[in-house]
Amino acid sequence: MSHPAALQPLVWDQRVLSLLDQTDLPQRERWVQADTVEAVVHAIRTMQVRGAPAIGIAAAAGMAIAARAASERGEAIGPALDRAAHLLRGTRPTAVNLRWAVERALHEAATAPEPAEVAGALGRLVTRLIDEQWAADRALSALGAALLPDQARVWTHCNTGALATGAYGTALGIIRAAHERGRIAMVYVDESRPRLQGARLTVWELTRLGVPHTLVPDVAAAALMASGRLDAVVVGADRVAANGDVANKIGTYALALAARHHGIPFYVAAPCSTIDLRTPTGGAIPIEERGPDEVRVIGQEAITVPDVAVWNPAFDMSRPPSW
Amino acid sequence: MSHPAALQPLVWDQRVLSLLDQTDLPQRERWVQADTVEAVVHAIRTMQVRGAPAIGIAAAAGMAIAARAASERGEAIGPALDRAAHLLRGTRPTAVNLRWAVERALHEAATAPEPAEVAGALGRLVTRLIDEQWAADRALSALGAALLPDQARVWTHCNTGALATGAYGTALGIIRAAHERGRIAMVYVDESRPRLQGARLTVWELTRLGVPHTLVPDVAAAALMASGRLDAVVVGADRVAANGDVANKIGTYALALAARHHGIPFYVAAPCSTIDLRTPTGGAIPIEERGPDEVRVIGQEAITVPDVAVWNPAFDMSRPPSW
Repeated sequence: MSHPAALQPLVWDQRVLSLLDQTDLPQRERWVQADTVEAVVHAIRTMQVRGAPAIGIAAAAGMAIAARAASERGEAIGPALDRAAHLLRGTRPTAVNLRWAVERALHEAATAPEPAEVAGALGRLVTRLIDEQWAADRALSALGAALLPDQARVWTHCNTGALATGAYGTALGIIRAAHERGRIAMVYVDESRPRLQGARLTVWELTRLGVPHTLVPDVAAAALMASGRLDAVVVGADRVAANGDVANKIGTYALALAARHHGIPFYVAAPCSTIDLRTPTGGAIPIEERGPDEVRVIGQEAITVPDVAVWNPAFDMSRPPSW
Repeated sequence: MSHPAALQPLVWDQRVLSLLDQTDLPQRERWVQADTVEAVVHAIRTMQVRGAPAIGIAAAAGMAIAARAASERGEAIGPALDRAAHLLRGTRPTAVNLRWAVERALHEAATAPEPAEVAGALGRLVTRLIDEQWAADRALSALGAALLPDQARVWTHCNTGALATGAYGTALGIIRAAHERGRIAMVYVDESRPRLQGARLTVWELTRLGVPHTLVPDVAAAALMASGRLDAVVVGADRVAANGDVANKIGTYALALAARHHGIPFYVAAPCSTIDLRTPTGGAIPIEERGPDEVRVIGQEAITVPDVAVWNPAFDMSRPPSW
């Protein structure tokens, strides 16, 4: 499996999870070495690592780290894994990949032939999840790229690239694959307020990959669509319910409504681990609300009256019209 | 005419235009004293004063200042006014009020009985424009407030209050009038990227007025609408074409599409000076594109890769569906 060094923001060496700190990009390329469950929990909660598939892989690494620590201290592995699972599940509620990865780790541990082999088995599971993610990303990216017209002008939201999956990317993987085939004229990257993952992360990735791109405020998407200069919208997903409802980064729903109004194809790209057949509709997906200072302050810059009340949902729900 | 001292961000004393600097709010309440045409041009271009009606009044003040300066230097007033008109028209292209106010000033000058009276006449015109704006704002605010349900939950975009009109406000005037009648449950204020007029200015005004409000990222409007917690959207306008097309702050169009999808009433509030019967449709309204650093940098905080290409239209176009 090819893992280009240029964009490998998540590295697992069977003991330590190394993460390119996404809260510092693009200004600084700083690496975090997470070697305890608590460090992994902190990285997920503070969004040093983010993106539904990447936080799934990080959670699995947290489980492997917990198993190894218990094993090396001579403690029982079962309770240590239960505690780690509890901590990891409590980090972020919306993306299903995190829960799915924790369950895969618990299952892997339960089926290990003997306790001494659990830590090693979980370590290898993390590697397998990364490889699976690469395979899924490459497959869906090739399929998605074939849906775009030649010299495509594409809008994308938030960040769904290597930073978000630890592999090739989902929606941004489609753009990357189309670019590798010479078929991308322009990628319009929105800022993705409030955390600005588009401005901070997607612009950084596309710069590294040499894909032509233009940064646009979220609010200008509908105007670009009306101008006739957009061929498609591609976004990722944090959870897809059994009926096809898509929970994704806040702002996705407004893009979907505007794209439908203008007759512009709107594609949601996600691996199977993002599909949650146990959740019947989007109404049952918990939507994380984050703190007010994500909106009130940008970096060191206060942008409003201190202590103003804020509503800051991290995700919204879109329903395919023809479902 | 009542001019509450609490919110009078634009003061004209027949010689100097005093402006509460909107680029410094809400952190600092700093006043700018504009006593030359160049200072007025600078204030409009840098958005120390902004909002379609307010820049109209500021432009008229610029004309009055130019007439007085020529008069005091013993120079011909006609060429001085032509030069001032040219400078002022070149500041910002989209809002029609600016052109309308410059034309009113030129007409006032042309009909003055003798040159020595032009400066005084233009000074009084500015006062009259402010009074007219107060009358228009109060009238449209009362009409608009009557359209809102009791205990209304209202979304507003950008800033359309005293800061934007130099008087009572248009869309925010409606909210203010409804609040004075005890009928506002909550105002949802969006950030209004990229210049954050909602976060910086509207939150500041509503705080001063004691109106309950919540700041929300622009991208979350459609999710709020879907949640059933919104009764109406009220916005202003920078220019309304003869066919009813509305040019307004970028992001208005996406709000209009989402409101229509959810069956939520969408009101555009503007005085007659914003209606441009000489422009047949929105397609003929010039849409200002502003510089890339408005998007790349927030205050002192770089939010993206330096030199990334940016598309930064300041306005967009909405068309009433049943027009």
